[in-house]
Amino acid sequence: MKKFKAAVLGATGMVGQRIALMLSVHPQFEVTALCASERSAGRSYREAAKWVVADEMPARFRDVVVQECSAKNVDADIAFSALPAAEAALVEKEFAAAGVAVSSNASAHRMEEDVPLVIPEVNPEHLGLIDVQRRKRGWDGLIVTNPNCTTVVFALAAKPLSDAFGVKTIIVTSMQALSGAGYPGVASLDAVANVVPFIQEEEEKVGRECGKIFGRVAGEKIERHHAIVSASCNRVPTREGHMESVSVSLEKNAGAEEAKRAMREFRGLPQKLGLHSAPANPVIVMEENDRPQPVRDVMRGGGMSVCVGRVREEKALENGLKFTVLGSNTIRGAAGAAILNAELLAAQGYL
Amino acid sequence: MKKFKAAVLGATGMVGQRIALMLSVHPQFEVTALCASERSAGRSYREAAKWVVADEMPARFRDVVVQECSAKNVDADIAFSALPAAEAALVEKEFAAAGVAVSSNASAHRMEEDVPLVIPEVNPEHLGLIDVQRRKRGWDGLIVTNPNCTTVVFALAAKPLSDAFGVKTIIVTSMQALSGAGYPGVASLDAVANVVPFIQEEEEKVGRECGKIFGRVAGEKIERHHAIVSASCNRVPTREGHMESVSVSLEKNAGAEEAKRAMREFRGLPQKLGLHSAPANPVIVMEENDRPQPVRDVMRGGGMSVCVGRVREEKALENGLKFTVLGSNTIRGAAGAAILNAELLAAQGYL
Amino acid sequence: MKKFKAAVLGATGMVGQRIALMLSVHPQFEVTALCASERSAGRSYREAAKWVVADEMPARFRDVVVQECSAKNVDADIAFSALPAAEAALVEKEFAAAGVAVSSNASAHRMEEDVPLVIPEVNPEHLGLIDVQRRKRGWDGLIVTNPNCTTVVFALAAKPLSDAFGVKTIIVTSMQALSGAGYPGVASLDAVANVVPFIQEEEEKVGRECGKIFGRVAGEKIERHHAIVSASCNRVPTREGHMESVSVSLEKNAGAEEAKRAMREFRGLPQKLGLHSAPANPVIVMEENDRPQPVRDVMRGGGMSVCVGRVREEKALENGLKFTVLGSNTIRGAAGAAILNAELLAAQGYL
Amino acid sequence: MKKFKAAVLGATGMVGQRIALMLSVHPQFEVTALCASERSAGRSYREAAKWVVADEMPARFRDVVVQECSAKNVDADIAFSALPAAEAALVEKEFAAAGVAVSSNASAHRMEEDVPLVIPEVNPEHLGLIDVQRRKRGWDGLIVTNPNCTTVVFALAAKPLSDAFGVKTIIVTSMQALSGAGYPGVASLDAVANVVPFIQEEEEKVGRECGKIFGRVAGEKIERHHAIVSASCNRVPTREGHMESVSVSLEKNAGAEEAKRAMREFRGLPQKLGLHSAPANPVIVMEENDRPQPVRDVMRGGGMSVCVGRVREEKALENGLKFTVLGSNTIRGAAGAAILNAELLAAQGYL
Repeated sequence: MKKFKAAVLGATGMVGQRIALMLSVHPQFEVTALCASERSAGRSYREAAKWVVADEMPARFRDVVVQECSAKNVDADIAFSALPAAEAALVEKEFAAAGVAVSSNASAHRMEEDVPLVIPEVNPEHLGLIDVQRRKRGWDGLIVTNPNCTTVVFALAAKPLSDAFGVKTIIVTSMQALSGAGYPGVASLDAVANVVPFIQEEEEKVGRECGKIFGRVAGEKIERHHAIVSASCNRVPTREGHMESVSVSLEKNAGAEEAKRAMREFRGLPQKLGLHSAPANPVIVMEENDRPQPVRDVMRGGGMSVCVGRVREEKALENGLKFTVLGSNTIRGAAGAAILNAELLAAQGYL
Repeated sequence: MKKFKAAVLGATGMVGQRIALMLSVHPQFEVTALCASERSAGRSYREAAKWVVADEMPARFRDVVVQECSAKNVDADIAFSALPAAEAALVEKEFAAAGVAVSSNASAHRMEEDVPLVIPEVNPEHLGLIDVQRRKRGWDGLIVTNPNCTTVVFALAAKPLSDAFGVKTIIVTSMQALSGAGYPGVASLDAVANVVPFIQEEEEKVGRECGKIFGRVAGEKIERHHAIVSASCNRVPTREGHMESVSVSLEKNAGAEEAKRAMREFRGLPQKLGLHSAPANPVIVMEENDRPQPVRDVMRGGGMSVCVGRVREEKALENGLKFTVLGSNTIRGAAGAAILNAELLAAQGYL
Repeated sequence: MKKFKAAVLGATGMVGQRIALMLSVHPQFEVTALCASERSAGRSYREAAKWVVADEMPARFRDVVVQECSAKNVDADIAFSALPAAEAALVEKEFAAAGVAVSSNASAHRMEEDVPLVIPEVNPEHLGLIDVQRRKRGWDGLIVTNPNCTTVVFALAAKPLSDAFGVKTIIVTSMQALSGAGYPGVASLDAVANVVPFIQEEEEKVGRECGKIFGRVAGEKIERHHAIVSASCNRVPTREGHMESVSVSLEKNAGAEEAKRAMREFRGLPQKLGLHSAPANPVIVMEENDRPQPVRDVMRGGGMSVCVGRVREEKALENGLKFTVLGSNTIRGAAGAAILNAELLAAQGYL
Repeated sequence: MKKFKAAVLGATGMVGQRIALMLSVHPQFEVTALCASERSAGRSYREAAKWVVADEMPARFRDVVVQECSAKNVDADIAFSALPAAEAALVEKEFAAAGVAVSSNASAHRMEEDVPLVIPEVNPEHLGLIDVQRRKRGWDGLIVTNPNCTTVVFALAAKPLSDAFGVKTIIVTSMQALSGAGYPGVASLDAVANVVPFIQEEEEKVGRECGKIFGRVAGEKIERHHAIVSASCNRVPTREGHMESVSVSLEKNAGAEEAKRAMREFRGLPQKLGLHSAPANPVIVMEENDRPQPVRDVMRGGGMSVCVGRVREEKALENGLKFTVLGSNTIRGAAGAAILNAELLAAQGYL
């Protein structure tokens, strides 16, 4: 298989480490550059990155010299961006202008009209915006983004419901893992045996991103979906995996069993295309009443499936259903999201 | 002040320990009997109770001989019951029949028609059912119950909203502390760094208890309140304090500021009567966006206040508001609930 | 490769689940029986075992009917025992008498004179006792045991020091993971944000097992090693991996660098024989001053390596060294220990 | 009682907050200045201090304007210093030179020859160095310091043993709470379900401070005690309370019962003088084999007692004993330590 040359932007941070780790065993992408801030540039990856993820740093990356995030010096077909939003706003455009395809986990460009915000199982057709983007921006590269981790998790569970029954309202209360805040992230005295009922900007992101993802391509932009999405975001002392209690109001009435069937049988384009990182079942439905649980279920489908449990009637909403959904925030919600987007780009001929 | 003789039923369990501890410094109640199962009876309290609460066992209880839960041998004006539901179903009636006032934290009798289910700030007028109860049951004693810990917490926050604006719908997602399950309770491997999205019978209790508490006395029983209450209950790795993300639909529109004012200014009958355990402010409204938090706020008002934060619009519901509320499950939601009910009984002349 | 038929005794418990999981992908052993208590017998494994380990129950075991732990009905060359000590005392002998090789993680027979207590990298020559055992007991089967999880971890680190410099004294303070107590094990209110400075019988086991493991075969029994081993065992809120702060007094003086070299270069018989579960490096030496850590390092070598860090002088002891060692308690200290013993049995012709 | 005017230096940090909280209800000290870095100066305490301790900020401090740590503008008899070491090195001398008594929790001056490093129950006679200090430095103020939190805890337990039997060697393995690192301190991903076997500079501090504290006044300086102190410091996921597994070698043999009696009966000068913050029993000996525990025992004696458990023979050391000791790191090991030192200064006429 032809290998694409891949740069990792923001390679020293936690999501960047996870991307590097996943790419180190990826059949399509070959890491040719590990890029980070000026402070890290020039040092070996081993020295520059305080390695915080559980698996070991891949041996062959240890002595790679970290480069600055500059398109000039980097030889890449694709750049995976795990940059902070402010840096991403500048750097990603520079790479796209230099002809590089950018698959970004950063929030900087997500809401721009000609930038696709994609979950491959949910709205792969939004990639069509790339042609608009290239024409308008006058570049040969591209920028594609994945949503915030909290959004990815319930959006995957909501997609089969939306397809089969239509969705009017989503009320989601999240219980988010500490890794979602990066490293060093949350102070341990705010975390151990505690819950913090607030995550900066998170509820706003969830609301606006969901409307775009479920929207439809209307000419040169996305027409937002009409569903109202209301989020209450909490940080809980788990290490990995966002748990979300979701109440939805559907357009058409559906019983719990019908809903579970729709979720269980759901397959998206990545499954049809057999993309490398696509899980066999994007949505796993569990019948035990005390599942899903972060410590036991977060790695299903290699961290790329979401697990749904406790599907039942929601009496407080019209045509209401409620359930719990769990997904890996660092894989399905970040590193794996950007990589699956890149695999879809490759399959669709954008690389 | 005249002191009432008090028995603690189920004194060796975690809630029983907390009741004993609170009564050990109470001006109105004097512990005359520590009662528990046959297995514990005859042993000293020190030996019988594996003491698991943070403060020390009161020195004067250590060598008290634990008695069986039998009304015959116990000399008491009031009995505080922290029994498991099955035992409570038998024992509490026996005590009431023997002329003892029973203030129960157990679920056994909560939903019986002539048994008041009371939060003193919310529905003190329900104590009027005691006359019905005495007549029907033919006893001189009485049984009064307090709700499940999860219900108490959001019900206190909802009361001022209900009074001022009316409540149509409540959707509550709880993040409940481990102490809510007693001791030994939840296995540590289910708890540490984990969330369990299920608590046996809890969602059902919340729904049915809330309707009764907010109901109105209609002749010899309570007419349930019409609001729909929908709960999703989760266990999170905190030690004390149930956090609850609440979305409400009101009868009349109310902005966040109006709602906060109503909560902040709310005072109930216990405050007016100056009951010993009544907090000055039953509902404390916090303005910091990352509060309330279990480790920092659960002991406000001696554990008898609930703390509300993040009051804001709920776009997904008609006349919608959402907020987070925190309350001590072992104090406001259990031991202190039973004691405040007893103080109200005394103030109203039922003792 | 010839496959041996394997029974798992105590298959529904946490260590039994882990053994079943490891055997489900093992090239030499084929699970032919999942055995447990009478209560579980006759039910499917899926129903009988509350599955608590992180990976999924292997699909092909789900509908296997759990059998009683009776040698009569079980067709096996080898039985892996994860039984509680009391049951193990009876059942393991029955299997051995029936001609089955028993590799046991239970403590029941560890200290019996003719039963080898083996860590394959440390004292493989103790397997010679099996001939004595067979003769004395008059059976064709055998019982071999692995030590307690706490012992395995520091014994592996101490072995290269013992070989190179001699060991006089070991003082070990453990910080043990919750999974070491099985399921349900430790109550969450004893665990979350807490330390318990006591584990029933653990310090005694550590002392006596270590003397036997490092002892030498003297005729028909093991002559205990003379080193004094003193343990202080603590339970801390980690999920997996026992951390141990170790101070040793050596026979010959050795600097930290020499000690690290000895540990790093250490290879035992399993490495030489290339046993399936043998890690390439039994002892991994880490140079970062804040490692090893349970969440990041416990799975090195597939959970079969131990990680040593912070090797430095111990001024308080003659020829003193101190270090921290981490090992997986459920793998290297339990399930993997029993399996590696079985692989050694096979390689040595005892199966 | 005459009230001394008190400044808190470093009032916005976690230890500073705790000092302010303790002084807010102290009969001898009246807070006249809350001082912090330039960044905080000029803002109200409410705005400048992100309040992280569990009790509420005292109402009367909320609108106090934070001042710079400058002796010129501050009117105080005594300054409590919770400054970082680098700032303390400059500021504390400035205050002493301006005639203020400084009771410091900072490490900056602890090891200076003419600066007492005092635990009032252990070495109150070291305050005599103040006369030397004043003469040499030519100031009317003074600097007195308390040790590092880890040292305080085991030193209190070791004092009665040292008095009665003599101490030759101390090997201590600590399991330290997260609050010991201040706020934000340890990253939650390093803390939750993890142990970190390293705390910067801690083991060195423990060794050198212990020798000074147990030393004797020899003319104008302290002659270090000869005992060898060896520490292994670990961070564990507890919120408050350092647990320490201690092995000691005594000069004279002592059984566990004798040792417990010596600890239980121990009273120091603060107890004899009846100092306000002095606990009735500096060392509480617990008989239950699973105590002390951080969540249940850390607040004994108002957080000023240490709790000792599991006293037993240490076979690995000559005349050996081992035990576990727990103490509050933020109270007995920091804020309360500085306040008790100040109370002793007042009682001894140094204020």
